[in-house]
Amino acid sequence: MSASTSTAPRIEFNPLTSAIRALAMDAVQKANSGHPGMPMGMAEIAEVLWRRYLKHNPINPQWADRDRFVLSNGHGSMLLYALLHLTGYDLTIDDLKSFRQFGSRTAGHPEVGHTAGVETTTGPLGQGITNAVGMAIAEKVLAAEFNRPGHAIVDHHTYAFLGDGCLMEGISHEACSLAGTLGLGKLIAFYDDNGISIDGDVEGWFTDDTPKRFEAYGWQVIPDVDGHQAEAIEQALLAARAEAGKPTLICCKTRIGMGSPNKADSHDVHGAPLGEAEIAATRPHINWHHAPFEIPADVYAAWDAKAKGAAAEAEWNRRFAAYAAAFPELAAEFTRRMASELPADWAGASAAAIAGIAAKAENIATRKASQNAIGAFAPLLPELIGGSADLAASNLTLWKGSKGVSKSEGGNYLYYGVREFGMTAIANGLALHGGLIPYTATFLVFSDYARNAIRMAALMKQRQIMVYTHDSIGLGEDGPTHQPVEHVASLRLIPNLDVWRTADATETAVAWAAAIERQNGPSVLALSRQNLPTVTAGVAAETIRRGGYVLSDCAGEAQVVLIATGSEVKLALDAQAALKMDGIAARVVSMPCADVFDRQDADYRASVLGKCQKRIAIEAGHPDLWRKYVGLKGAVIGIDRFGESAPAPKLFEFFGFTVANVVATVKGIL
Amino acid sequence: MSASTSTAPRIEFNPLTSAIRALAMDAVQKANSGHPGMPMGMAEIAEVLWRRYLKHNPINPQWADRDRFVLSNGHGSMLLYALLHLTGYDLTIDDLKSFRQFGSRTAGHPEVGHTAGVETTTGPLGQGITNAVGMAIAEKVLAAEFNRPGHAIVDHHTYAFLGDGCLMEGISHEACSLAGTLGLGKLIAFYDDNGISIDGDVEGWFTDDTPKRFEAYGWQVIPDVDGHQAEAIEQALLAARAEAGKPTLICCKTRIGMGSPNKADSHDVHGAPLGEAEIAATRPHINWHHAPFEIPADVYAAWDAKAKGAAAEAEWNRRFAAYAAAFPELAAEFTRRMASELPADWAGASAAAIAGIAAKAENIATRKASQNAIGAFAPLLPELIGGSADLAASNLTLWKGSKGVSKSEGGNYLYYGVREFGMTAIANGLALHGGLIPYTATFLVFSDYARNAIRMAALMKQRQIMVYTHDSIGLGEDGPTHQPVEHVASLRLIPNLDVWRTADATETAVAWAAAIERQNGPSVLALSRQNLPTVTAGVAAETIRRGGYVLSDCAGEAQVVLIATGSEVKLALDAQAALKMDGIAARVVSMPCADVFDRQDADYRASVLGKCQKRIAIEAGHPDLWRKYVGLKGAVIGIDRFGESAPAPKLFEFFGFTVANVVATVKGIL
Repeated sequence: MSASTSTAPRIEFNPLTSAIRALAMDAVQKANSGHPGMPMGMAEIAEVLWRRYLKHNPINPQWADRDRFVLSNGHGSMLLYALLHLTGYDLTIDDLKSFRQFGSRTAGHPEVGHTAGVETTTGPLGQGITNAVGMAIAEKVLAAEFNRPGHAIVDHHTYAFLGDGCLMEGISHEACSLAGTLGLGKLIAFYDDNGISIDGDVEGWFTDDTPKRFEAYGWQVIPDVDGHQAEAIEQALLAARAEAGKPTLICCKTRIGMGSPNKADSHDVHGAPLGEAEIAATRPHINWHHAPFEIPADVYAAWDAKAKGAAAEAEWNRRFAAYAAAFPELAAEFTRRMASELPADWAGASAAAIAGIAAKAENIATRKASQNAIGAFAPLLPELIGGSADLAASNLTLWKGSKGVSKSEGGNYLYYGVREFGMTAIANGLALHGGLIPYTATFLVFSDYARNAIRMAALMKQRQIMVYTHDSIGLGEDGPTHQPVEHVASLRLIPNLDVWRTADATETAVAWAAAIERQNGPSVLALSRQNLPTVTAGVAAETIRRGGYVLSDCAGEAQVVLIATGSEVKLALDAQAALKMDGIAARVVSMPCADVFDRQDADYRASVLGKCQKRIAIEAGHPDLWRKYVGLKGAVIGIDRFGESAPAPKLFEFFGFTVANVVATVKGIL
Repeated sequence: MSASTSTAPRIEFNPLTSAIRALAMDAVQKANSGHPGMPMGMAEIAEVLWRRYLKHNPINPQWADRDRFVLSNGHGSMLLYALLHLTGYDLTIDDLKSFRQFGSRTAGHPEVGHTAGVETTTGPLGQGITNAVGMAIAEKVLAAEFNRPGHAIVDHHTYAFLGDGCLMEGISHEACSLAGTLGLGKLIAFYDDNGISIDGDVEGWFTDDTPKRFEAYGWQVIPDVDGHQAEAIEQALLAARAEAGKPTLICCKTRIGMGSPNKADSHDVHGAPLGEAEIAATRPHINWHHAPFEIPADVYAAWDAKAKGAAAEAEWNRRFAAYAAAFPELAAEFTRRMASELPADWAGASAAAIAGIAAKAENIATRKASQNAIGAFAPLLPELIGGSADLAASNLTLWKGSKGVSKSEGGNYLYYGVREFGMTAIANGLALHGGLIPYTATFLVFSDYARNAIRMAALMKQRQIMVYTHDSIGLGEDGPTHQPVEHVASLRLIPNLDVWRTADATETAVAWAAAIERQNGPSVLALSRQNLPTVTAGVAAETIRRGGYVLSDCAGEAQVVLIATGSEVKLALDAQAALKMDGIAARVVSMPCADVFDRQDADYRASVLGKCQKRIAIEAGHPDLWRKYVGLKGAVIGIDRFGESAPAPKLFEFFGFTVANVVATVKGIL
């Protein structure tokens, strides 16, 4: 074994960890792009966790009761790819050779759904540990719901690796604070404390006493672990696993780029290849005498987790069979939930619920309509797990069956506190874990705080339903800081996010159903604070589900098409009536979800928008995106500036959302 | 004096604090909207700070050396309005009567620039305390730059009030961690620890040991202060002011809605009027026997800070005169800087710098061009204070004169750490303080993390220059988590934000100059990672400053107009040449800043876009917003999905950014 360097604690480089280091440095070198420092620095930690304790089956990455592993410092993707390859997942040495190349399974950052064994997409710092908090909450909630005495069918850990960057990000505060409050004893995080971030030695900008900080959150903290000594790591891990009532942070002192004789401890090794010369020097230093991407059979054998994993899953399968014998309905329900299947009676029951809501024709705020929809759907869907960032009574996210998750109990509602970003990324973790459909809520304007987690839900194709209330100037007196004028348009720009802005109770219920049924991405519901009248009497739910539809047509050819959403649909109808008095034939299109509308076939879209090129979009939000429907010959009645603090009716008048202005605008373009 | 309630520590309600409570409850009641709980709970704290220690002059809210006060829990705006009114600012009792009404000076949340004495716009939680950190950094930096022995002309405190909500928000972690690292001894925060947030008693979702958390950041913490006992508050404040090397958090135990006999301690009093009956019960309880909005003369007299403030400013003016006599150049520079005036030679020197950059015609990445622009402009502008969220070497924000701010020293560069949101809101505080022009930086994709602070900069009309590099798929291998495909479009939707996406070094330098000269709002520079060729040879800087211009026209009438930005401008030029070979006359418009272009007069805009209705926008970003220029008859070559992990050239080809595709698209619409 190689000697340690003189400036650091002794380390015995062994073939198991040297294989990781070599794969990481060689793959990054071959790609001429990537981050070798972290994989080389965390190799010992990874070996202890992945070889000795992680409960997983490389042959079945979807095993329900596997431990979840999250690489929150996702730039160190080669660590994860090396581990997946070495332990036996469907990731070949050729995949590693094509690291970061087009179409490869070894993307620059780990991507869930793209590479077997990757539990979440990471890279945007702080979100991985937050996803992990969500996964640990999911485990706790599902265990409380499904386990029975002697039948612990849900019983796994969530492990996360994280670095200084994750700990500096604000979201780590939000997530770890809540993890402490909820006492997530099965969450274990390894802090890669190497003292280096991209700008250099962190002491100039990051001097937190991190152990003290996490103790303040109610975590168990194991400080000062030598991250290159397997025995120390293992003892810390055992202590973490022994603590059932608190999450654990294991603070590992490590050296970034460990094994590189000349570049370890330097930020140069963070995000750039070592270079051929340093790689040549590193090989003997770590006692690794194989060509790039060559792994000896005995090293493969020592890492191979397939047999152990298969045995572990088989043992669980036996236990699950016993559980199924004792509790057949619970077992069936668990199986359904983990398969992301809706209940067999969903289609009929949800249609009946929507029909009932439509029949009531209540003139209520769409946030209230959302609460009614939750109340109608949640009893059908035990997997719905709600929450709000401290605005339950404003967002109207509670229903009569809501039960808050606490340190001591499971439930179906999370009091997230004032933590919009944390909430949204935690909910991504709930969705990724499986067995749950999360809905989250805040004021629409504060979707800004959560924006990258919304994006990550869309990128990861995760089902999360985002209930964003107090849409636009309709919130009134709270003023421009709280009035989302650009947010609906801005959310529509995020790929794979469905943004609904609904006009009444029925459109809101349909949006909820569509969001629940959507298997491959998140949905936003932008909802009003103020009451809105029923405008969809007689409209079929299937029509609304197309995202945009002719709500009220005129006799004969339309001279103008009024396209409106949400609170402005009634205005469009009123303007249509006024225009008729003036002899102008107008069609009204309700467009609750442009994203869904855009996915309809071209014939349908053309039939809704009509042949008439004179189109006016009406929405109390930023106007410019509407040009995609109204073009340059049409007009948009919108808001291209910040709002004002005043009662809502005054603001709608001030900003031109009046029949007179719509009529004048129509006449202006005709 | 009234007796205390039985369940709380004794409190002597006195007319000074009762005046605040009465104004808050009466104004909220009259508006039938607002938040009485916080003002009633923090009345004693406010009295101690504002009457006894705050250095301010109500007659001159712009006095350079005033203490800065930030109401981070901005929903309690009536506390600030009451204080401003009572101490003598230009805010009348009639203004208070029109709380939250259209056009009033008493908006729902405090708005800087709208109401005299309001230092920053607050409401979005956590950002106020972060602005305060920025203000305290500004004080530290300016003191280091301008003070001389015996001449402490910059010597003031920054005070902030904050609540549970601010402390739950992640941004509070980012800002307060950095404040501890920088040892901001003149920052003093009062924590309104009332145990209540909107969802109720915080113990279900917020169980941090906050004193311990802040000690972990290196703050002085004064715990367990009775927030209703003036003597205790004053002692804590004295201890805070005595600590020069650390920021101080004073943890005040308070009762939300204190003074309301039946609603105190309840979240019902957080965000809703007390109601006439409870107000009637509160008046005698707080020993206040006056009609709504009636303040006795002796109470006004006791609160009036005009004479004391004028004397304090006069004393400072005398000291500044002595400073000016000893250091006339420094004094003139300080005066210029605090007046937000650019140096007298700016116009000529910056024009010369741009000309020099244009003459070099370097084919470099626009991030490198940005660094060159910084290097050219910063020596002219000592007020420029830079920084990056741990990506200095990637964002290229350092220049040879950069000096990092540290605990012991001032400087002109902030190593913000991995704290995008905190950075952006801190920079808002730097700008609000005055005397500095902040520039900040991260990867464009992580503008998401900072988004609401970007919005707040725009809403507050603050000059902040946001250097967002690694634009679009050009960043290559880091993949979709790091590729901003929707961000440029999404930032363009924020009102009053100028978004530049520049094509080469000259456009980049012009964008920098425009951003520096812009007095009423922030600017984003979206910059490439990869090298871009010079495309603006011969184009005047004044032309580029118009935001969009004809870069290359065709002979005669154009059959198609190609509108491009950034890395796609060269592609448009190449396509123009290819089209010419096919006999198609194409005009190329470079549109580095659509926001600025839209502010040009209609004739200019029409002259650039031309009469031709066949227009094609080319931008490696979300296409739909471009319909505002190309309409329904044109086309957009953009990216409406997430990116991929691969080398950049491969990605540009894959996504259709090729001459062949542009030519085919042109032929498709002709």
